[in-house]
Amino acid sequence: MPHPLFDKHRATLDAAVKAIHERTYWAAYAEMPSPKVYGETAMDDGKRAFDRCLGQQFALDQPGQTAWMSSEQSPYGFALEVSYPVCKGQALIDAGLQAMPGWQKIGAEGRTGICLEILERLNKRSFELAHAVMMTSGQGWMMAFQAGAPHAQERALEAVAYAWREQSFVPPEAIWEKPQGKNPPLLMKKHFEIVGRGVALVIGCGTFPTWNTYPGLFAALATGNPVIVKPHPNAILPVAISVRIIREVLVENGIDANLVSLAAFEDEVATRELAQHAAIKSIDFTGGNTFGNWLLGNCRQAQVYAELAGVNNIVIDSTDAYKAMLRNLAFTLSLYSGQMCTTSQALFVPTDGIETDLGHKSFDALASDLAAAIAALLGKPEVALAVLGAIQSPETLQRIATASSGALGKVVLATRKIDHPEFPAAQIRTPLLLACTADDPAWRQECFGPISFLVRVTDTAAAIALSERVVREQGALTAGVYSTSAEVIEAMTEATWHAKVALSINLTGGVFVNQSTAFSDYHGSGGNPAANASYADAAFVANRFRVVQRRYPL
Amino acid sequence: MPHPLFDKHRATLDAAVKAIHERTYWAAYAEMPSPKVYGETAMDDGKRAFDRCLGQQFALDQPGQTAWMSSEQSPYGFALEVSYPVCKGQALIDAGLQAMPGWQKIGAEGRTGICLEILERLNKRSFELAHAVMMTSGQGWMMAFQAGAPHAQERALEAVAYAWREQSFVPPEAIWEKPQGKNPPLLMKKHFEIVGRGVALVIGCGTFPTWNTYPGLFAALATGNPVIVKPHPNAILPVAISVRIIREVLVENGIDANLVSLAAFEDEVATRELAQHAAIKSIDFTGGNTFGNWLLGNCRQAQVYAELAGVNNIVIDSTDAYKAMLRNLAFTLSLYSGQMCTTSQALFVPTDGIETDLGHKSFDALASDLAAAIAALLGKPEVALAVLGAIQSPETLQRIATASSGALGKVVLATRKIDHPEFPAAQIRTPLLLACTADDPAWRQECFGPISFLVRVTDTAAAIALSERVVREQGALTAGVYSTSAEVIEAMTEATWHAKVALSINLTGGVFVNQSTAFSDYHGSGGNPAANASYADAAFVANRFRVVQRRYPL
Repeated sequence: MPHPLFDKHRATLDAAVKAIHERTYWAAYAEMPSPKVYGETAMDDGKRAFDRCLGQQFALDQPGQTAWMSSEQSPYGFALEVSYPVCKGQALIDAGLQAMPGWQKIGAEGRTGICLEILERLNKRSFELAHAVMMTSGQGWMMAFQAGAPHAQERALEAVAYAWREQSFVPPEAIWEKPQGKNPPLLMKKHFEIVGRGVALVIGCGTFPTWNTYPGLFAALATGNPVIVKPHPNAILPVAISVRIIREVLVENGIDANLVSLAAFEDEVATRELAQHAAIKSIDFTGGNTFGNWLLGNCRQAQVYAELAGVNNIVIDSTDAYKAMLRNLAFTLSLYSGQMCTTSQALFVPTDGIETDLGHKSFDALASDLAAAIAALLGKPEVALAVLGAIQSPETLQRIATASSGALGKVVLATRKIDHPEFPAAQIRTPLLLACTADDPAWRQECFGPISFLVRVTDTAAAIALSERVVREQGALTAGVYSTSAEVIEAMTEATWHAKVALSINLTGGVFVNQSTAFSDYHGSGGNPAANASYADAAFVANRFRVVQRRYPL
Repeated sequence: MPHPLFDKHRATLDAAVKAIHERTYWAAYAEMPSPKVYGETAMDDGKRAFDRCLGQQFALDQPGQTAWMSSEQSPYGFALEVSYPVCKGQALIDAGLQAMPGWQKIGAEGRTGICLEILERLNKRSFELAHAVMMTSGQGWMMAFQAGAPHAQERALEAVAYAWREQSFVPPEAIWEKPQGKNPPLLMKKHFEIVGRGVALVIGCGTFPTWNTYPGLFAALATGNPVIVKPHPNAILPVAISVRIIREVLVENGIDANLVSLAAFEDEVATRELAQHAAIKSIDFTGGNTFGNWLLGNCRQAQVYAELAGVNNIVIDSTDAYKAMLRNLAFTLSLYSGQMCTTSQALFVPTDGIETDLGHKSFDALASDLAAAIAALLGKPEVALAVLGAIQSPETLQRIATASSGALGKVVLATRKIDHPEFPAAQIRTPLLLACTADDPAWRQECFGPISFLVRVTDTAAAIALSERVVREQGALTAGVYSTSAEVIEAMTEATWHAKVALSINLTGGVFVNQSTAFSDYHGSGGNPAANASYADAAFVANRFRVVQRRYPL
């Protein structure tokens, strides 16, 4: 079933499928906000488009609207005052189901082509999306642009590529001819129809409203499902802009806009009712354990893809690049004030210290050197503002206050509040570094935000065992090791196989343990409590559609 | 990681992958029990090998053995008196986990090669396996041979092919080189390790102890997992022989035999405890709703692939081949006395009857003609014995007795008990045909065994709507339609898309609605209550392993 948009984007799709198979570096969308790529006026246009949303109703022409709601408080210290339509969940479901047959009918090629067209359109709106991400999540500008726009689009494209690979493996039809010895063969015509499971619900988070939402959204969409996106109440705008663009592209291509809709609710009960609705067949969720585990336990009618809390950790055994290690760690702990689900929380250090190219370093020396490295990185206010962004939630501010009191461990590096010249009410904090022992309970729970623990352990073997155990029990999206010993690296490698967590080894340059790149790095293994799925792999897409066959004699 | 067995079986694997992609007719193993293929002495050798098991201890050299148990009563009317080792679940888990690293280490090629070698070995033992299947399940000889041996092996090979396709898509390693403008590129080496989820539990059924067990067993095994097979207490022998062969091939290839073990338990509590064990990461189950839904609800630590009860049905609207339709239906309802999870249970017929090439047929005329067709098919005792096999369980005999009383609907064709010259105590029954209305409750529940309902409905449109509804609510593995109208076939096709059930259209020859062929027909859509997975597709294998990556700068 040829589709003009499939042909238009075929080269991009082929390159994406090649990329997920080879996992070398590849990118479809420019990650630098360059005027040469995005246009000379893109920066200003994007800012203006964002500004035009503020204080206004964000119309989406969705069915079942009962009210408008407005809830976003920017971490940069102002209210967005954008109002979004509140629609009845049942109305969104009914409208989505009504749109589904048309989406099924255009087949995998049509769906893939339209998804790629949507992504191209989203990419062109990257500056507007970046402002919306920055001002709702509190990310710094560059991160908001990269993670919020091109990198999120890459993750979406990756999901579409996996979805295409699986769907295109299913032949639309076949002639089945079974020999019968001397008798005429049995001859059957068979058709294999790809049918989406039903309405998909995608529940976004407040820190990465597009990056963590697009994979599930596009995986479900590409495989034939209507999608209802329920954004975090403090990060609706980037999702609303995305949904509006998606609906525009759908309509331009003869598909009912209500295939994709925005669910903005004021009360959590509405979300729970929607999630438990019999028509909701898949749920993608990024967020805390409380709601995530409720979804897993109570929405049995749906496939639930959940990314939850974890305790990311690093084993520090030894290094031949001490200063570079410290710089790398300092950046990891500082970036977006540690508000990434991939930021390291626990750094395991042997009680006798470590060997380095600059001699032996005691536990305390390492602690103070790391504190100094963080202070140095964030010494210049303009760098600090760009790296840190703002604190996204009051709960994180509260955690910082609690940890600052010394209740969770000895304070090695205190947090500082930084003023933002442009946003005086912005909540900006430098990382807090604590020291504790392996027995202390605090480091074993996710402590989301700019709070990290240097955990004193008996030796490297104990550190590796502890890393494996905490990943098995609490989950983790990332693990790291610094060591000059091949044996240590091998032992850590095996520990991560057991606990199923991605390992970064001896990062000392421009790659950081908390960063994962689409088409090459799997985000989450899907095999420990931090996430039951990965961005992206075959398992992330293969069960979002079913094949319904029919056959008849010829 | 080249492996000699991978090379040895490469052509078979490639052909299997091609077959699941093209879904034309293909088979790896001969389905006819021909001496030319299987050897002149194969029949006698197989029978003798089976006979040698009777009354003996079936040693497997598994850890944690506490007792022997013997439970199999042949539906052909005798006790097998084979004793199997009862081992502690914990011991089987521990031993399986100990065997896992070696299985991981040989990689997807090694695992695939060994799986294919196992299948070749199983194929050579097809006669022995067929006898074991026949005498435990009650199937007739030819079905026991085909479904129990080559067809089961095909389904296993299909799962291995899907598993290979997914695993081989993941590159073992990659060089990641990201340009940095005028600066040197970021350069990373990445490794991608395929790691099984953990111990897989495969719970077999009494009617198809190999055909329904092999897909999960081989899907889990090929993707790197230890497997514990828990057979139905009345159909242990075919599984025990299979497990012994698998263990032999594993050991021959340097893999710990305890990677695959047999769990024979006398009490159901032991099975439940095993299923809920934290180390059990996947469960494959075929059987009734009570235990299946308990597994789904209570074994949250595991991925559960469940094939449960359903109400398979056929809409009869019209036909241009009345007699051939009746012959086809008669065979479907008679084969293995309807004890297939794919046998049609409800035949929807308009109250005003149907148009045929032999003129109009009233509801009652169709009912009596179908009854006559069944009686004619089973008129010769030797044919009846071959087609019907024996009734597998006392529960099915009880259902036949209940239905015969007229409690579930008007008896159109009574069941007959047939004597088996060789097995005087065999429980052999011809199909029971009932007539009822759409409002009657009995036909809406699975009524496993040779009991079918002609359901009187208002018209064809009502029949299609009822079919869709019952599949959505109760599930089904198969649906059928007979019609000369393109509109009716299209409406039924759409209904099966909504309810997600495979449709057979106008079957009048040598293909039957209750038969599905590996590599071409999906068994179960995985999208309605009868099964949450399909044999086999990408979703059946993709989530049985995880990819654990590691990366380091170059």
